[in-house]
Amino acid sequence: PFHKLNFDLPAPSPSHRTPSPNYPKAAPLTLNQCSIYLIPRKLLSPAAERLRYILGEEDDMPTPTLFTEMDTLQQDGDELEWKESARWVKFEEKVEEGGERWSKPHVSTLSLHSLFELRTCIQTGTVLLDLEGYSLPQIVDEIIEQQVDEGMLSPDLREKISFVLLRKHRHQTKKPIHRSLADMGKASGGGARECPSALWSSMAVSSLRHIIVLPKCYICHAQSRSMNDISDTPSTDQLRNKFMKKIPRDAEASNVLVGEVDFLDKPFVAFVRLAQATTLGGLTEVPVPTRFLFILLGPTGKAKSYNQIGRAIATLMVDDLFSDVAYKARDREDLIAGIDEFLDEVIVLPPGEWDPKIRIEPPKKVTSADKRKSVFSLNELGQPNGAAGGGGGLAEDEEMPVAHELGEELAHTGRFCGGLFLDIKRKIPWLLSDFYEGFHIQSISAVLFIYLGCITNAITFGGLLGDATDNYQGVMESFLGTALSGTVFCLFSGQPLIILSSTGPILIFEKLLFEFSKNNGIDYMELRLWIGIHSCLQCFLLVATDASYIIKYMTRFTEEGFSSLISFIFISDAIKKMMGSFKYYPINTDFKPDYVTAYKCECLAPDPSESILMPTDNTSSLFGLNITGLDWSQLSKKECVKYGGSLVGNTCKYVPDLALMSFILFFGTYSMTVSLKKFKFSRYFPTKLRKLISDFSIFMAIMTFVGLDRLIGLKTPKLIVPTEFKPTRPDRGWIVLPFGKNPWWVYLASFVPALLVTILIFMDQQISAVIVNRKENKLRKGCGYHLDLFWVGVLMAACSFLGLPWYVAATVISIAHIDSLKMESESSAPGEQPQFLGVREQRLTGILVFVLTGVSIFLAPILQFIPMPVLYGVFLYMGVASLSGIQFWERIKLYMMPSKYQPDFPFLRHVPLRRVHLFTLVQIICLAVLWVLKSTVLAILFPVMILGLLVVRKMLDMVFSQHDLAWIDDILPGKDKKKEKKKKGDKDDTKKKDKKKGRSDDSEDEVRHVRFYSWQM
Amino acid sequence: PFHKLNFDLPAPSPSHRTPSPNYPKAAPLTLNQCSIYLIPRKLLSPAAERLRYILGEEDDMPTPTLFTEMDTLQQDGDELEWKESARWVKFEEKVEEGGERWSKPHVSTLSLHSLFELRTCIQTGTVLLDLEGYSLPQIVDEIIEQQVDEGMLSPDLREKISFVLLRKHRHQTKKPIHRSLADMGKASGGGARECPSALWSSMAVSSLRHIIVLPKCYICHAQSRSMNDISDTPSTDQLRNKFMKKIPRDAEASNVLVGEVDFLDKPFVAFVRLAQATTLGGLTEVPVPTRFLFILLGPTGKAKSYNQIGRAIATLMVDDLFSDVAYKARDREDLIAGIDEFLDEVIVLPPGEWDPKIRIEPPKKVTSADKRKSVFSLNELGQPNGAAGGGGGLAEDEEMPVAHELGEELAHTGRFCGGLFLDIKRKIPWLLSDFYEGFHIQSISAVLFIYLGCITNAITFGGLLGDATDNYQGVMESFLGTALSGTVFCLFSGQPLIILSSTGPILIFEKLLFEFSKNNGIDYMELRLWIGIHSCLQCFLLVATDASYIIKYMTRFTEEGFSSLISFIFISDAIKKMMGSFKYYPINTDFKPDYVTAYKCECLAPDPSESILMPTDNTSSLFGLNITGLDWSQLSKKECVKYGGSLVGNTCKYVPDLALMSFILFFGTYSMTVSLKKFKFSRYFPTKLRKLISDFSIFMAIMTFVGLDRLIGLKTPKLIVPTEFKPTRPDRGWIVLPFGKNPWWVYLASFVPALLVTILIFMDQQISAVIVNRKENKLRKGCGYHLDLFWVGVLMAACSFLGLPWYVAATVISIAHIDSLKMESESSAPGEQPQFLGVREQRLTGILVFVLTGVSIFLAPILQFIPMPVLYGVFLYMGVASLSGIQFWERIKLYMMPSKYQPDFPFLRHVPLRRVHLFTLVQIICLAVLWVLKSTVLAILFPVMILGLLVVRKMLDMVFSQHDLAWIDDILPGKDKKKEKKKKGDKDDTKKKDKKKGRSDDSEDEVRHVRFYSWQM
Repeated sequence: PFHKLNFDLPAPSPSHRTPSPNYPKAAPLTLNQCSIYLIPRKLLSPAAERLRYILGEEDDMPTPTLFTEMDTLQQDGDELEWKESARWVKFEEKVEEGGERWSKPHVSTLSLHSLFELRTCIQTGTVLLDLEGYSLPQIVDEIIEQQVDEGMLSPDLREKISFVLLRKHRHQTKKPIHRSLADMGKASGGGARECPSALWSSMAVSSLRHIIVLPKCYICHAQSRSMNDISDTPSTDQLRNKFMKKIPRDAEASNVLVGEVDFLDKPFVAFVRLAQATTLGGLTEVPVPTRFLFILLGPTGKAKSYNQIGRAIATLMVDDLFSDVAYKARDREDLIAGIDEFLDEVIVLPPGEWDPKIRIEPPKKVTSADKRKSVFSLNELGQPNGAAGGGGGLAEDEEMPVAHELGEELAHTGRFCGGLFLDIKRKIPWLLSDFYEGFHIQSISAVLFIYLGCITNAITFGGLLGDATDNYQGVMESFLGTALSGTVFCLFSGQPLIILSSTGPILIFEKLLFEFSKNNGIDYMELRLWIGIHSCLQCFLLVATDASYIIKYMTRFTEEGFSSLISFIFISDAIKKMMGSFKYYPINTDFKPDYVTAYKCECLAPDPSESILMPTDNTSSLFGLNITGLDWSQLSKKECVKYGGSLVGNTCKYVPDLALMSFILFFGTYSMTVSLKKFKFSRYFPTKLRKLISDFSIFMAIMTFVGLDRLIGLKTPKLIVPTEFKPTRPDRGWIVLPFGKNPWWVYLASFVPALLVTILIFMDQQISAVIVNRKENKLRKGCGYHLDLFWVGVLMAACSFLGLPWYVAATVISIAHIDSLKMESESSAPGEQPQFLGVREQRLTGILVFVLTGVSIFLAPILQFIPMPVLYGVFLYMGVASLSGIQFWERIKLYMMPSKYQPDFPFLRHVPLRRVHLFTLVQIICLAVLWVLKSTVLAILFPVMILGLLVVRKMLDMVFSQHDLAWIDDILPGKDKKKEKKKKGDKDDTKKKDKKKGRSDDSEDEVRHVRFYSWQM
Repeated sequence: PFHKLNFDLPAPSPSHRTPSPNYPKAAPLTLNQCSIYLIPRKLLSPAAERLRYILGEEDDMPTPTLFTEMDTLQQDGDELEWKESARWVKFEEKVEEGGERWSKPHVSTLSLHSLFELRTCIQTGTVLLDLEGYSLPQIVDEIIEQQVDEGMLSPDLREKISFVLLRKHRHQTKKPIHRSLADMGKASGGGARECPSALWSSMAVSSLRHIIVLPKCYICHAQSRSMNDISDTPSTDQLRNKFMKKIPRDAEASNVLVGEVDFLDKPFVAFVRLAQATTLGGLTEVPVPTRFLFILLGPTGKAKSYNQIGRAIATLMVDDLFSDVAYKARDREDLIAGIDEFLDEVIVLPPGEWDPKIRIEPPKKVTSADKRKSVFSLNELGQPNGAAGGGGGLAEDEEMPVAHELGEELAHTGRFCGGLFLDIKRKIPWLLSDFYEGFHIQSISAVLFIYLGCITNAITFGGLLGDATDNYQGVMESFLGTALSGTVFCLFSGQPLIILSSTGPILIFEKLLFEFSKNNGIDYMELRLWIGIHSCLQCFLLVATDASYIIKYMTRFTEEGFSSLISFIFISDAIKKMMGSFKYYPINTDFKPDYVTAYKCECLAPDPSESILMPTDNTSSLFGLNITGLDWSQLSKKECVKYGGSLVGNTCKYVPDLALMSFILFFGTYSMTVSLKKFKFSRYFPTKLRKLISDFSIFMAIMTFVGLDRLIGLKTPKLIVPTEFKPTRPDRGWIVLPFGKNPWWVYLASFVPALLVTILIFMDQQISAVIVNRKENKLRKGCGYHLDLFWVGVLMAACSFLGLPWYVAATVISIAHIDSLKMESESSAPGEQPQFLGVREQRLTGILVFVLTGVSIFLAPILQFIPMPVLYGVFLYMGVASLSGIQFWERIKLYMMPSKYQPDFPFLRHVPLRRVHLFTLVQIICLAVLWVLKSTVLAILFPVMILGLLVVRKMLDMVFSQHDLAWIDDILPGKDKKKEKKKKGDKDDTKKKDKKKGRSDDSEDEVRHVRFYSWQM
């Protein structure tokens, strides 16, 4: 309706005319006016129109980054000089006058006052755009000429102004601490003793001038002087400045000079843009050519005010949008329009709620200026996302979270092996970079960390498999299999960050299979081979039919449930194993130190009468010959038992110290790793060193506690690696033959157990892959679900032929692998937070880990020093660390937090807390059920249980609204599509059929423009 | 000079007239214009003049605190209603639409735009001040009448406006979680299933109106409805609101109502102040009477903008200064002047450096509005400290830190016992409160903590003294002395927070004294008595002459040196004792579990030939009779040694498990205490519970590890408390007689060692007292150095007569005592940080601790469960905790921090880093020297060494400037006075002799006013 275009807050009626300052009725333009071109052009405010004109040309180059330095005029003894007082790359760094050093980078807090004063300065001062400047004196002359010409400066002040402006510049540079400690005596012994008292008194009077015109002694050290020479080449001081590396290479400088002089009675203001960026002698602390120059000289007494104006222009110059305006401005009015735009976007803190003395730390993330710029771009349609922000720049976005997307990798191609070919196609371009990107120091720590995890796993599972299969598969097979499968997988797979390992369900399957074959007289190894072959073929079938696409139905709910479960298993296993050592090495809690004489354990010869009673006993008859000749008291515990002796005494079943020592090693390794990981966020030492310590935390913790263990010298259980290359069971070879030992129907019937194995492997593998490929990890090289499954299948068959265990993706170790390879940006501008860039995606670390595992047999002499409790500590850390990134875990913590202390998670802003709690509760119950099932023989149905999670998730659709689920979980693909269609339909409806309604949706923005227009009148 | 009064930035020349919005050339008034009355009154800006007039009346009552609630008009199905969207006590709390809960309190970030729009609203809308309102309908009628009268509203809209404004109000109240979980099924089972999809699509269209006019289902739970009844009595919902306790009792409400309606074509704005605060039905969520009402109704399409205006006025209403203005405003112009003042004080964040979506956490401390108000007060002289802030409100204060002040307690009265009488006079008024203030839950934890510290100390020192004095003073004497001295001291002393204890230097003195008397045949106890008597008299002399005033010369340097040293001793003692258990219970590191049969320890009968060779041996001959009849193998280790048997075997010198268990207990207690202490700052559980956990952290840690120790049941070394009340040495009684055993000259000569003891006691006692009385602790009851010393003297004599050890203030335990009694304010307004209020100063906890120590003899059955390593862990914690508050320690940490990561300590802003490092280095060297000396026999000269510290500090005056020292340390009293005098002299000079210069100091402020004046023209 038209009337909406013509209203506004009523104009002030004449009767209410105010004697207070003439505030504007509104600022010219606001953010996010996407529909700016839906209304007649003449309704745009002139300022916005100007900006649109100068910023609108899309084709031109991006403007260089500006480095801004502010120098203030100060009296050094008798001499005047320009002293650097602050600098900006993106945030402000101030020179701490007393501390003689740079403050931390902080957000520039300005006063509204200074911004208005700056506006007046630009309005009234000299503005020289595209001046052909080659040296500072020449530029200064031009400015003065201009001012004299315009009658703003009396000609007799020429010399004085020129003299002041050409004083030398003194920059705040860092001096090495040892040098400054050396010249301390000099500085303090002589003049300094008198001087401080003068300073003392001058400061006590608290006169502003006294503080600014500091006594000479006060600024005589730790600063470099740059001469006022007009050389074009940068001075050594400039070149030596380490700060240069914080400034982008293409940067140009803007110099702000403010100061008070006694010969002026009105301010001398100039804003200069040079046609070419030029190095103007020692003007700037770094060898960056100057493009802009802002000069404000004024009468004495207002230094603080000038300072604030200087800070205001400096802050403006580093503002992305204003610096664009400054580069492209055609005249004074363009600059003023830029200031107006800035003022309109400004964020205001009320004085009663904030202390201006607090320096605000730079935020983690700053809204990009592109959003502000897009308003002025010539793109007629406007950015659709620009509309979401709403008016005022201060409203919260009500955007929905990005929908759950697994990308085209999981699209159902419908062609034979379509997904597999796409995977290969996607991977080939990265082949080279998959190797050279591995050359980084971080890779070393990652390899060490994952290697230790892998061999611990190999030994643990090897031992358990050995027990379960009567040593048909033992530690040796475990090492070999891990090495072989891992290397092949990392070389050829779609996602080389995945680490293969034995997993619990497989172990249980093998156990059941071995018992079945033993009881039914079927050859275990041959049966296993056939199951492997069948399973491999089934995997190929799944690959060929792109079956992995069903992974799409796995939302955060399922992923997190699975990975938490695996993490809990890791944690509980680590603790269980640790607690096991209290059983292996029982502590004699009744030990009384004083009665040490009463403690002994003796081996007594068996009663001869008893040995006669059991002549069937093999062992006793085996050694029956020399039993009588034995010195029983000299036998060790094992020998004693072996020869049928009996152990008598009160210490026999106890082992001193080992259990407690194991506990110390276990807990120490874990807590040291945690502390060192956290060390990255401490304040000590330079960032690089801290990062190194954090990266190598596990390695350092292991080394420390291995060292401690060596130092104390107790016989703690150590890592035992097989040293000879031969199958664990002497009666098996390296190759399993497919035929001969079992009846023919077994070859076919093994199809059925193979199906179970296939499901198991498929689920385990693909869920781990989904977790690894989470979008939070910012992987760029794409994933390859089909290719991964293909290789897992191939390896299944290969391992079956060689009689090695089967391998599948291990969630926790894979997450640890990714975590140890995370990259962060080196922060560029001081104060900017480093951003998580992604993961070093390459094949090198994986390959190295598994090659190392393979050659571990030769590393046994070194590895044998590592106590097992230390490795359990590493396991515990892995489990805990992989929990930490999970939203589910964060939501569990919410239960214990009163709502006012809860962190500001996005989903808490949009979903009622009780809904969040309910969702978490459902997850906890599911997990508890899985945990209980896992502990029973049903563990073999583990993959089926995961499918159960999918069903539960599907049912949640009935309890939770899609809106809530979108925030806490993800939308299921089906729903997603339906909704999307519906959304589109809605949109089309709105746009096509009901134009009136469509317009009223946009009316807020229109109205805003009209309002501006009316305010401009 | 006069010309300074007449300049300003040049006014815009006509040629530069701008078409952009008419920004003011300056805001009206700035902070800190202390010299406001030095210039002619007519130069004041009209806005400032207005504020000065209305705020200037000093005598009137402080205005009540305002609680502001903002309600927005929303469509609930077919019905319109006002829904609470935000509230302010001091900071903003927003209703999270989706989350259906309150956001965390945060600083209101406004847009400049909304503030200007608000200004326009007040300028053009209806302003009704002191309206006689008794119900909402009547008030609404009055507003509408006024608008119709002024022709701003067409009469036919009366009904509609009135209808809208009288819709019911719905407040965001918290529903208990169990109730909301219960009605979940209802909410989700029925309509909710369809509804979310509607919402989903409506949000996807991202139309602003759709979001604001939410579908019915979306707001149907967890909110209470307050009817539009016009009752004067608050509703039950209001009364039940727990939020009420966060609002001060005298608070009044201001209600902001904003909304869009379709029948208006220009906004309907009203600002109402009621003559009397009145409860207007369910308007406000809490039963607080309404004083202010701001209404903004406008045409549809601009809801966001109205929202922002509403937030702006709400933020203004809770601003201390503006709320004063609002209460006292005479007309519309006063309000506008208030807005202008607010705008001028506003802090501006540049858009490129801050993301408006970030909610800024409330700062720890906010500048008081008094500073801003003082500008307008009628106090003609102005606050001298107001000038220091400088212009713009954003400059850093260059204030010097407050000078080192120990208060009048240490003034040299010059009269006999003058200080002592003053101390008593100061203490008497607090006598009653010294007891009843002790009744608090915190006291229990303090008593438990300090009690455990005290008995551990008593046992440790008792044991050591027993060794040193051949049991003339043993554990029993130690307990009794601690109980007696402590109780008396806490009852009568000047500073009952000080805890008396044995200290290291005294121990060493006793040791030397005992050796001396033994070697020279002098009776130790009698000599000691005389030394005690002399020392007591010397203390009285020191008290009588007010000698404690020399403590004034102790600066931070000395204090921190002393207390760090004591802390280090605590830490090193704890660790040493812990390490000692590895010696007491050596670990058999060669133990091989398998060869357990080879380990034994047997007691063999002595070789009869050898026992013949030493017939002089007392013990062997004593039991010689039955040696032969003994069953040697049944003897315990001790018995075996006693009877002269020899222990043979490879386990004799080893004790299993105990050393490692001790270590686990020690380290566990320490780290659990540290973690629980930190728990206060975690997000879990309500504040009160966390505080409780933190307060009782030590107790809980002790209980946990005592429990663990019981559970495992190892014979770890336990706390052994004497159970019988008799002197440790059987040949001494409870009273030492002064005469009879030593020659007469000993009575006189003991004056000399007494002098050493006196110095020792004086320094130990008074430095600890200074540390306890630090101004950081905010003690209000004053201290009593003389009184303390008097009682220490009395107790010296008393203990000497009873043959008990001497006691003196123990730094670390006293600090722990204070720490455990610290009070924090319950935060009143949401978001306000709790402030440290002071310490529960009372005598009860101290008395209880020592009475408990006394009756510990009867508590032995309970105390014997406490393992010593647990207590060492507590010791370690005490030492570490007392280090943490020390600036010296913070400065040591700076060595390891790159300067950009260093915290923003005030001294770092004002003193160059290398000077800070040098100062720290000097302290470290002093400490190292003291540490080395302490480890030798020179430890007895410890007090003299502290005097040495004073000398070093005096010498530092030559190396460091007074300015630097004022920031890092304190100024020595002499210097301080001299400087102060000099300062004053300077000031007088300036003021009296050189009026011209005096004025130029103030010229900055004058100039500012002139500038405002010229801007107003």
